[in-house]
Amino acid sequence: MVATLWHIPGDADDPLPDTPMPPTITPLPLHLSAPFTIAHGTSTRRTNALVQIGGGWGEGALPPYYPHRLDDIAGYVRALPDDLLTGDAALHLEHALDRLPDGPEPARAAVDMALHDRWARQLGHPLYRLWGLDPADSPLSSYTLAIPASEDALREQLAALRGFPILKLKLGTGSLETDEAIVRIARDTTSARLCVDANGAWSVDHAARIIPRLAACEVLFVEQPIPDEATADWKHLRQQLPADAPPLIADESVQTSTDVLRLHDAVDGVNVKLAKAGGLREARRMIGLARTLELRVMIGCMIESSLALTAAAHLAPLADYADLDAFLLIDDDPFVGATMQQGRLTLPERPGLGVQKKPSE
Amino acid sequence: MVATLWHIPGDADDPLPDTPMPPTITPLPLHLSAPFTIAHGTSTRRTNALVQIGGGWGEGALPPYYPHRLDDIAGYVRALPDDLLTGDAALHLEHALDRLPDGPEPARAAVDMALHDRWARQLGHPLYRLWGLDPADSPLSSYTLAIPASEDALREQLAALRGFPILKLKLGTGSLETDEAIVRIARDTTSARLCVDANGAWSVDHAARIIPRLAACEVLFVEQPIPDEATADWKHLRQQLPADAPPLIADESVQTSTDVLRLHDAVDGVNVKLAKAGGLREARRMIGLARTLELRVMIGCMIESSLALTAAAHLAPLADYADLDAFLLIDDDPFVGATMQQGRLTLPERPGLGVQKKPSE
Repeated sequence: MVATLWHIPGDADDPLPDTPMPPTITPLPLHLSAPFTIAHGTSTRRTNALVQIGGGWGEGALPPYYPHRLDDIAGYVRALPDDLLTGDAALHLEHALDRLPDGPEPARAAVDMALHDRWARQLGHPLYRLWGLDPADSPLSSYTLAIPASEDALREQLAALRGFPILKLKLGTGSLETDEAIVRIARDTTSARLCVDANGAWSVDHAARIIPRLAACEVLFVEQPIPDEATADWKHLRQQLPADAPPLIADESVQTSTDVLRLHDAVDGVNVKLAKAGGLREARRMIGLARTLELRVMIGCMIESSLALTAAAHLAPLADYADLDAFLLIDDDPFVGATMQQGRLTLPERPGLGVQKKPSE
Repeated sequence: MVATLWHIPGDADDPLPDTPMPPTITPLPLHLSAPFTIAHGTSTRRTNALVQIGGGWGEGALPPYYPHRLDDIAGYVRALPDDLLTGDAALHLEHALDRLPDGPEPARAAVDMALHDRWARQLGHPLYRLWGLDPADSPLSSYTLAIPASEDALREQLAALRGFPILKLKLGTGSLETDEAIVRIARDTTSARLCVDANGAWSVDHAARIIPRLAACEVLFVEQPIPDEATADWKHLRQQLPADAPPLIADESVQTSTDVLRLHDAVDGVNVKLAKAGGLREARRMIGLARTLELRVMIGCMIESSLALTAAAHLAPLADYADLDAFLLIDDDPFVGATMQQGRLTLPERPGLGVQKKPSE
């Protein structure tokens, strides 16, 4: 059922099909406009999974540093019970989501997204409206700078991004001095607000050493400074930091609500991503739980097309920080949905996720 | 702004008003068909608060054993910011709920309910549909028997309730022997499933003594056996009970998500009520959290009209147990909404909460 040719079946403009159709799984190749380097490695392209269920669309991100591949997604979707796809099932979203089997998070995320899309289209409203959200409440999104190849490359990129209000700097070069230099150069070059993401590259001791120096550059927050394994390490890091250190946001350490509970007194906030949570419902639960626990909330993304980015953007009004820029990093995004102008997100007003195929040029 | 005469302004059949109207607060007197005795005392009538906001209706329950009165509700509603009531505010439910000031839970519950009603009516769907729920997933509701005045009165009531599939027996008579006798008589008289609610009347030692004896009567669960104060008491009780004791459900001990977190490893389930949670949104958060924590969920009620009962019934598809019978206990329910036949709940299919004023007779 995995199509081997690059072809997106159907279109969000098509009416919802009257008769149930088997779900389709299609590779969704994405080429980055520039090599993207983070502490986990360098990417020039990704292949995500596109899932279509009864007129609803979903995307599963497959970053190379997570274990799942397209075949896993296809296997998961093929094994779904038929009655998720028929009759009134489209209206009974919670019931359908309750019955999703365990499986790879990106597969569940793609199916959850397609079911939300189908459901909201059936009810005739954009998803954010069915959640009672006001798109105007969305925070400005940051724009992510990968680890630069050189100081000149960094300066060039900073110049090109003039006007972006919030920049997120990927750190974890292997040298604390280089990491700090990246932030200092950015601080001296731009008036944008800055935040940093080490993708778990620092030891607790290194993090305790560098974070106060980054604080001097007025960093908004520090994301995933240390590896994701142990809750005790987060607490240990916190104890070593001054009280006015920037907030610590957990990303790789937090996949689902269970992790939010486990880490809530060890971090200041969590980065919620659909591909980690396994979809929009769990992401919303995580956000509700984070609010109960008085944690800050970031909505983040993987390298994803406008499909998954738009799904995540529907949640942005619930967040303190948005990091939903990946569609700006890719050359061949086949979709159009949410847009971003200088960090300001605009959600489509069409029913469902509101994502369309880009007109062929 | 509190109307002194008994009059419900407007009707859910009226179109949503074009221009913002000030919210109204009206007393909602309810007469019980029979005196209702629980461990907290006896009631023959209650006066709840009816709140109307821009065409949406909400009810705040005011049981005599909670501290709030109608004037507190009126004061709270009068102080609401004007812009909760105007323009696009009706569409931006989450934003409006985020901005509700702290205040008495029944006041927040009534306002939250009215805002949900208005929002769902504006979107043109029943509330349960906007939550993606299938009413067919609702569990059967229990029917509550107050503490009987005599053994004969109990037998008479049990005979009248023939056919009800689940009966909830109120205990806490002051005598463990009488409490146990109530359950034994019920067990010998009816084939209904039984559950019990002590409303916090037992000490830990008494609870540890009586619960195994009730278990012999195949009791489904035991609700609030001990007073609500201390988490440690729940743990202490659990340690004294055999592993196969019926599940312990916390009611008075659990108001909001914070309590669910605090108690989650001391109880087996929680009774979620709108008047305690402060409304539908917090109730849904509590349910999501309880699921994450693998707790059982009951949707319960106070002595309320069909308005608040119907609001709670929209949540029933998310619950393991429903205890939504109060509208069967009152003589002068001015509303019609969800209905119940032998424990089976039926939700109205009209937009919003779907509640209407009863036609005058």
